Amino acid sequence: LPKDKLLSGLLAPGFDEGSCLSRYQSVLFRKPSPYKPSRYLLSKLRNYEALHKRCGPHTKSYNETLKQLKSGHNIDSTDCKYIVWISFSGLGNRIISIASVFLYALLTDRVLLVDRGKDMDSLFCEPFPETSWLLPLDFPIIDQFNRFDRESSHCYGKLLNDSITNATTISLPSYLYIHIVHDYDHFDKLFFCDEYQALLGRVPWLIIRTDNYIVPSLFLIQAFGHELGKLFPEKGAIFHHLGRYLFHPTNPVWGLITRYYQAYLARADERIGIQVRVFDTRPGPFQYVIDQILGCAHRFKLLPEIDVHGSGVTLSAKPKVKSVLMTSLTAGYYENLRNIYWEYPTVTGDMISFYQPSHEEYQQTEQKLHEEKAFAEMYLLSLTDVLVTSPWSTFGYVAQGLGGLRPWILYKPENDTAPDPPCVQSMSIEPCFHAPPFYDCKAKKGIDTGTLVPHVRHCEDMSWGLKVVDSTLDFPFKWPS
Amino acid sequence: LPKDKLLSGLLAPGFDEGSCLSRYQSVLFRKPSPYKPSRYLLSKLRNYEALHKRCGPHTKSYNETLKQLKSGHNIDSTDCKYIVWISFSGLGNRIISIASVFLYALLTDRVLLVDRGKDMDSLFCEPFPETSWLLPLDFPIIDQFNRFDRESSHCYGKLLNDSITNATTISLPSYLYIHIVHDYDHFDKLFFCDEYQALLGRVPWLIIRTDNYIVPSLFLIQAFGHELGKLFPEKGAIFHHLGRYLFHPTNPVWGLITRYYQAYLARADERIGIQVRVFDTRPGPFQYVIDQILGCAHRFKLLPEIDVHGSGVTLSAKPKVKSVLMTSLTAGYYENLRNIYWEYPTVTGDMISFYQPSHEEYQQTEQKLHEEKAFAEMYLLSLTDVLVTSPWSTFGYVAQGLGGLRPWILYKPENDTAPDPPCVQSMSIEPCFHAPPFYDCKAKKGIDTGTLVPHVRHCEDMSWGLKVVDSTLDFPFKWPS
Ligand SMILES: Nc1nc2c(ncn2[C@@H]2O[C@H](COP(=O)(O)OP(=O)(O)O)[C@@H](O)[C@H]2O)c(=O)[nH]1
Ligand SMILES: Nc1nc2c(ncn2[C@@H]2O[C@H](COP(=O)(O)OP(=O)(O)O)[C@@H](O)[C@H]2O)c(=O)[nH]1
Repeated sequence: LPKDKLLSGLLAPGFDEGSCLSRYQSVLFRKPSPYKPSRYLLSKLRNYEALHKRCGPHTKSYNETLKQLKSGHNIDSTDCKYIVWISFSGLGNRIISIASVFLYALLTDRVLLVDRGKDMDSLFCEPFPETSWLLPLDFPIIDQFNRFDRESSHCYGKLLNDSITNATTISLPSYLYIHIVHDYDHFDKLFFCDEYQALLGRVPWLIIRTDNYIVPSLFLIQAFGHELGKLFPEKGAIFHHLGRYLFHPTNPVWGLITRYYQAYLARADERIGIQVRVFDTRPGPFQYVIDQILGCAHRFKLLPEIDVHGSGVTLSAKPKVKSVLMTSLTAGYYENLRNIYWEYPTVTGDMISFYQPSHEEYQQTEQKLHEEKAFAEMYLLSLTDVLVTSPWSTFGYVAQGLGGLRPWILYKPENDTAPDPPCVQSMSIEPCFHAPPFYDCKAKKGIDTGTLVPHVRHCEDMSWGLKVVDSTLDFPFKWPS
Repeated sequence: LPKDKLLSGLLAPGFDEGSCLSRYQSVLFRKPSPYKPSRYLLSKLRNYEALHKRCGPHTKSYNETLKQLKSGHNIDSTDCKYIVWISFSGLGNRIISIASVFLYALLTDRVLLVDRGKDMDSLFCEPFPETSWLLPLDFPIIDQFNRFDRESSHCYGKLLNDSITNATTISLPSYLYIHIVHDYDHFDKLFFCDEYQALLGRVPWLIIRTDNYIVPSLFLIQAFGHELGKLFPEKGAIFHHLGRYLFHPTNPVWGLITRYYQAYLARADERIGIQVRVFDTRPGPFQYVIDQILGCAHRFKLLPEIDVHGSGVTLSAKPKVKSVLMTSLTAGYYENLRNIYWEYPTVTGDMISFYQPSHEEYQQTEQKLHEEKAFAEMYLLSLTDVLVTSPWSTFGYVAQGLGGLRPWILYKPENDTAPDPPCVQSMSIEPCFHAPPFYDCKAKKGIDTGTLVPHVRHCEDMSWGLKVVDSTLDFPFKWPS
């Protein structure tokens, strides 16, 4: 039976296995991770679990702190402090943002509570033992969540804006709303400055809406830098560890994952994941995307080329089979590639099979079965040996992160042409923060935050994005071998 | 290397292997057939090959006989006699009709020449050694083929009609056209009477248009009965032998077959073919068809049922995988079944995977790649272990015949409802003759030709059709065990 079902100590033992089969069965489907969690991270997680159990929903401490929220006044010290994550955006965005907010909770001794939205509880098991991370449905201000935006009276950015521009003083309310979404402004971004973090520490309830992976910018907050270094000495595997710690598919989703894997993928000699996310809104499939995928796969020898004359290849009784798992909202790319490799032999004689679990045609955020399939597909991609991902897509980030795979990232095409080179192998397995601040909090001026420290760099797929890279990666820039 | 690459002597040795890889490689993909060809059949085939070589295109004898055709007069005896098969109808129809006409050629010492239509030569290898079965493109009346119908002046039925109704005598022309298509009339059907066969023997050139498997009615012609009994003592495997003898996929089609098999099917523990041919012209998929397929598969334990509560099943590290190869012009049935078995576990814990090589959306007769895929799919179905076929479809007949599989035949649905029982296992692996005559040639009156001899019965899927069944099958009707 599974040797390392606790994933090198990442997972706590003692959960009921039947209620969340994936938790201890994931080891049956994954290769052992080359990234080991630090002992410090492990003890931090165990402490967090104790904290969450003590402060979790409907505990004495929770009820006490809730009273304060209801009173509307801020009392400086409470037993427990919380950060509530508002369910928002596509599933990939939700997963990477929860992981970020959980890390923030670890760094600030807060308890993470997750707004279940329409489907969070049907997608994810409880990650913490003997308690729940789901925000109770009777949470007082839960009805206001979908009205929270950067203009809300409790929005931290707005409060700062008012106090700084009008030189008023901030009177801390019993909760603050933090807005880190693509439309967030200069004042919202002050969240990433040490001095404004200090202030936040005094508010027991933080409510956050973000669809981003904010971890790279947390590294640039001095107060957190040291602790982050201890937690993640390797640096470039933060989401890998936190993701595998937090996101256990529920039994229905685990069924989708295991059945698909065993029915279609398990017997291949090699598995290749290709995540196709096309933001071009015209009806596809687009030839330039097909060219780009094949260009990337051939250039980096992920797939053999085809023999258009089909003559040189002799039949082998037991050829090598490479299975390609494709994910996409539409079927066109899969059908194209599958037909090419059906109609022509490969130059190596290897057999290439193609699989696509679903083609949902359009994005349906928070539709139960739709999102279960989306999660299953991210997870299935993470079980491949080699991964190709689309630019700008958090869907792919989740797959690479959970799988510990340095994907080949397709470059963003311009003018309906496959870029040259078509793709590049990612520097690390970390997600990219798509909307980081470019601000020097001390000097109070703009700065390129992607060049301040060796382990926070600009992303391959988005020049203004930031990602954490392994501490062993050479600086200045050089592709890892 | 292949033990029985000549298929128990069915195939002649000595062909160039590279020019038609499938001929001697088919044994690598098929299970050994339980049906053995008789020694008499083998010697008949060898004699036929010698005849074809002597009389084939552009031989001296061929050129001589052609002169006669051009002269327009019939000389009673020629060295060689021919039957020319006109390319017509869907591929399944073409294959079963060629096999029938070849058998007729064997019985009447004629040489079969095949009109290549748009794609016959790109689909099939030459079946006879050191010669060609393709009708030369310079054949004198080749341009008239598509105008031949039951009203044509050379049509045998029309000649008989004229002579019988007007009491004129037939003056035999240098060629006759034989029309055995759904719209053929009483006089065309006299082809199946002994006395009218005798007359035909004197005409060197027969040109036939048929899309049917006329073999069952050949059995009812006394002059042929004895010979057929010697050729096929087992009776119910006529197409199985003749089909494997005649229809060798060309290298491009063989590539489609072998690549698909090796990439998708080879590693399964069991292979199930489901051929879906729906003649309902409204846009599908239809729920009643889905219900019927599942009903059949479950009733006869071809596929395990699903566990809708999904609770009872525990994960097995190496579950049994059953792969279902579906063929259909549309993707809807495949997608439905695939999703059901993805979304729910089976009660047995077996994994069921689904495959459909193409979905061409509509029938495109004589389109090269389209028909190559159609042939590849029939052949792939024939490589499965268990077969489910659609009623009335010659596409399925070819698969069952080549594979030597007694399929479960879906009954024809009525009123948009899945029939009960949904399907029945076929009595034999023989195709059904869809339009047989019901005529007693001697008594000159109607008769039920499906009850005259034990080995010619009405078909399961078409009550007025006729099929040959094994001589070991009990009579009257009883399902074989
Ligand atoms: N099943 C499935 N859903 C997808 C796929 N791509 C996008 N989606 C849907 O679209 C949403 C995209 O949002 P997200 O996961 O945040 O990824 P992103 O928009 O690419 O960053 C997902 O949550 C899915 O609902 C796919 O390949 N498969
Ligand atoms: N590729 C493919 N073509 C099909 C399928 N079903 C029907 N067709 C096409 O439709 C034609 C049907 O004619 P035929 O083979 O004579 O079968 P029948 O009409 O079912 O008796 C075939 O020749 C194909 O071109 C299928 O499942 N796959």
